[in-house]
Amino acid sequence: MIFSSFVFNKEEPIYLQIENYIKDMIKDGMVVNNGKLPATRELGKLLNVSRNSVITAYENLKCEGVVYTIKGKGTFISIKKFINEDGWKVKWEERTNSYGKLAEKLDIVKHEISWEKNLISFKSISPDGNLFDMDEFKKAFLNRISIEGHKILNYGYAKGYKPLMEYLLEYMNGKGIQTNNKDIIITNGFTEGLEMLLTAYTNPGDKIICENPTHNTSIKIMKVHGLDIVGVNMKQDGIDVEELEDKLKLGGIKFGYLIPSYHNPTGIVITGEKRYQVYNIFKKYNVPIIEDGFNEELLYNSTHISPLAALDKGGSGVVYIGSFSKILFPGIRVGWIVGDKKIIETLESVKRCKNIHTSFLDQGILYEYLKSGAFEKHVKKVRKSYKERYEFALECINKYIKPTFIYGEGGLHIYIGIDGVNSRELLQKCYKRNVIFTPGDIFTVDNTGKNTLRLGLSRLTLEEIEEGIKIIGECLEEYRNIGRIGL
Amino acid sequence: MIFSSFVFNKEEPIYLQIENYIKDMIKDGMVVNNGKLPATRELGKLLNVSRNSVITAYENLKCEGVVYTIKGKGTFISIKKFINEDGWKVKWEERTNSYGKLAEKLDIVKHEISWEKNLISFKSISPDGNLFDMDEFKKAFLNRISIEGHKILNYGYAKGYKPLMEYLLEYMNGKGIQTNNKDIIITNGFTEGLEMLLTAYTNPGDKIICENPTHNTSIKIMKVHGLDIVGVNMKQDGIDVEELEDKLKLGGIKFGYLIPSYHNPTGIVITGEKRYQVYNIFKKYNVPIIEDGFNEELLYNSTHISPLAALDKGGSGVVYIGSFSKILFPGIRVGWIVGDKKIIETLESVKRCKNIHTSFLDQGILYEYLKSGAFEKHVKKVRKSYKERYEFALECINKYIKPTFIYGEGGLHIYIGIDGVNSRELLQKCYKRNVIFTPGDIFTVDNTGKNTLRLGLSRLTLEEIEEGIKIIGECLEEYRNIGRIGL
Repeated sequence: MIFSSFVFNKEEPIYLQIENYIKDMIKDGMVVNNGKLPATRELGKLLNVSRNSVITAYENLKCEGVVYTIKGKGTFISIKKFINEDGWKVKWEERTNSYGKLAEKLDIVKHEISWEKNLISFKSISPDGNLFDMDEFKKAFLNRISIEGHKILNYGYAKGYKPLMEYLLEYMNGKGIQTNNKDIIITNGFTEGLEMLLTAYTNPGDKIICENPTHNTSIKIMKVHGLDIVGVNMKQDGIDVEELEDKLKLGGIKFGYLIPSYHNPTGIVITGEKRYQVYNIFKKYNVPIIEDGFNEELLYNSTHISPLAALDKGGSGVVYIGSFSKILFPGIRVGWIVGDKKIIETLESVKRCKNIHTSFLDQGILYEYLKSGAFEKHVKKVRKSYKERYEFALECINKYIKPTFIYGEGGLHIYIGIDGVNSRELLQKCYKRNVIFTPGDIFTVDNTGKNTLRLGLSRLTLEEIEEGIKIIGECLEEYRNIGRIGL
Repeated sequence: MIFSSFVFNKEEPIYLQIENYIKDMIKDGMVVNNGKLPATRELGKLLNVSRNSVITAYENLKCEGVVYTIKGKGTFISIKKFINEDGWKVKWEERTNSYGKLAEKLDIVKHEISWEKNLISFKSISPDGNLFDMDEFKKAFLNRISIEGHKILNYGYAKGYKPLMEYLLEYMNGKGIQTNNKDIIITNGFTEGLEMLLTAYTNPGDKIICENPTHNTSIKIMKVHGLDIVGVNMKQDGIDVEELEDKLKLGGIKFGYLIPSYHNPTGIVITGEKRYQVYNIFKKYNVPIIEDGFNEELLYNSTHISPLAALDKGGSGVVYIGSFSKILFPGIRVGWIVGDKKIIETLESVKRCKNIHTSFLDQGILYEYLKSGAFEKHVKKVRKSYKERYEFALECINKYIKPTFIYGEGGLHIYIGIDGVNSRELLQKCYKRNVIFTPGDIFTVDNTGKNTLRLGLSRLTLEEIEEGIKIIGECLEEYRNIGRIGL
């Protein structure tokens, strides 16, 4: 506290002036809560006044609750007294722009029933952490730190940690993507990948085509960017190509956003000829594709599926966004974009505007983990584990729910449709019995899908899966018998 | 490779049909480079044709360079042949929007002379990694991992890792900020903090006031958001309050962006009465302040400076962005925003749109490191080390450069002005002698500051500091003698 600038007037008593000075300092925020005042003798000397005046001032302040004393320690400020309830109030809720408003409105964490203890939750499609090999992870950390030292904790490059970039490019090459005219940038997960692309290449009002239903987070990101979303319905083998061409024909479409290899939420894999057909239609209309490589690693029935980006030999029409977040350590937030060199050059600068770069420590650990071979072992392990849950859940669904349709070819979730049922109403019933799932309407761009739901399996045991699905079946039975009245 | 769907026609020879089928699969991207073909005997059986037809097909493909053989291993695909040079070309450079274009244009990494070996670079204000205590860092990692286990590697909360949030709120409280009406969100460094605030609370064309000069990255972020930047000139004790009020009077200002505690690039600290004055002017016009807490921890001459946010008792007019990136591990990208509860509620949803959350691993390690007491020790150590470099550099500047003015009170850099000198021209001369620095114009919003420059000291030894400054002095001498002609 600055007492040196203190000047006494001749009108008021010294002790009162000291009191007011201390109060002013508190009001002006120049002192810290619980800050120590000088000892009375010391302050008396400093101000060249009698110690008694200081004692009186301190005593009065104590009575007012402005300071307090700890025996043998001294006198301390208590700013509570001075919290100005009439402080500067800014009405922040009126200052949010459309991005902020939409982000809140579309935030399912804020608006959907969320996980609670004792709930059997089919909502999550996060990986099962019990499957993470923590020893391998620790080893990866220690190895990488011993190789890179403090360098990996200092500023790095916007495009990413070089060894990881090279590893992932090679990995993409292994999926059949021709990478010689392409480059890579590391992002904070898939979400940031899509967000950055839309930031740099779209303007509000632009049209974007996507499968309907599609990944709800992607819908949200497109909406906060003010895009006009054009949904194309799904058939049992993937996007409806006739409808797709009809909509592309109309023109004015900026991008296509597709999840061709393990579609979320339906789980549909576009295979063979149709893959090529979808690629060719977009190419014909010169509408670039943003390919979401969601969960390619978890396909159970196919050994290898070429991404759409692999069909784009020598071309630059497909931008691929990858992530291991449904398999490996989503908490560290590492994803990537592979695309034309010019795209990555632009995104490199965009990344510097957003957050400079993705954590180099996390990139370094991931790289070490991947190259050690631990990743391959892990993928085998999780495939086996998730496949078991998936197949068991299918059995249970057929036994207890008997839905109108079941879509998908594996992965971390099952998507089903039940004719005549509103899945939100069903959810209300199930919630009363401590079971929750994701109602399918949040995946649609036109408020349809009301009779569908997604069951995430990745964090449940076989026992929980059976119990939960049985309860859903019972609730469905009840729903059909007494309908909405029973709510 | 899927040979099972293969159907022979009766017109063409079997071997030719096999050849064409394989070529089509390659063209369609249905096979991987270096993918193995079935053995001739195997494929013959599978297709129910003679092995000889398969051998002929393979031989022909080999001649065309479409496949190759490794003795004893088999026959493999070579897709090189099929790289379609006339592939789908998208002119990405024409599709970039104004954000993308500006991000590239304003990306100093792409447009300014950058670090090379053997250069004495006064450009960087990154922390000196040699000062990082790697043992403490490793300990922090191992401790936190042993406490949290795999949970810290799975999805977490958008607002951040709870123990870190609480720690930092307490830390802010210790700086005098009243936090009971406030909340905190963890960001990927300061950059993301500012980016998120502008994303949620500004629209293109909005006016924002800032000090002129100011942090160049902040100027960039404001520009890519399309903001109309209103600069207010700096005096020797900080922002010109009269000019500030004149500009606020005109109305229509959305935000003020200030670095009051250790201004970048000038190093000026606004103290005492003036701090309160600045706060009050913004309050009077109800224009909220975004406070950049840049380098508060590195003030050498003051023991404690209350942030502007500390003056805002009971109010919600100041949003504080904090970061340790100039002291501690910038590579892990952890910063924070403390502001009104409603702001943080909105930003929580914004964060979910941007990248879900900041790495929980990094947050966990940082928390462990902070609470262990290693941080306090570290701050003492770096203060001492940087202060030594700072004071020595001051001496050298006075001896070799004799600038018109030197601003600032410590930290990682020194800002100087030299009348009659264009610092970019001086830089050209110095670069020829392997010394670089940051020309001051990049910190201004109106293309002024041409006679100023910033010397970052944090990554240089005392020897390098002296040698570099001596060279700058010699180049300046030469510049003055022969002027621009000598370039």
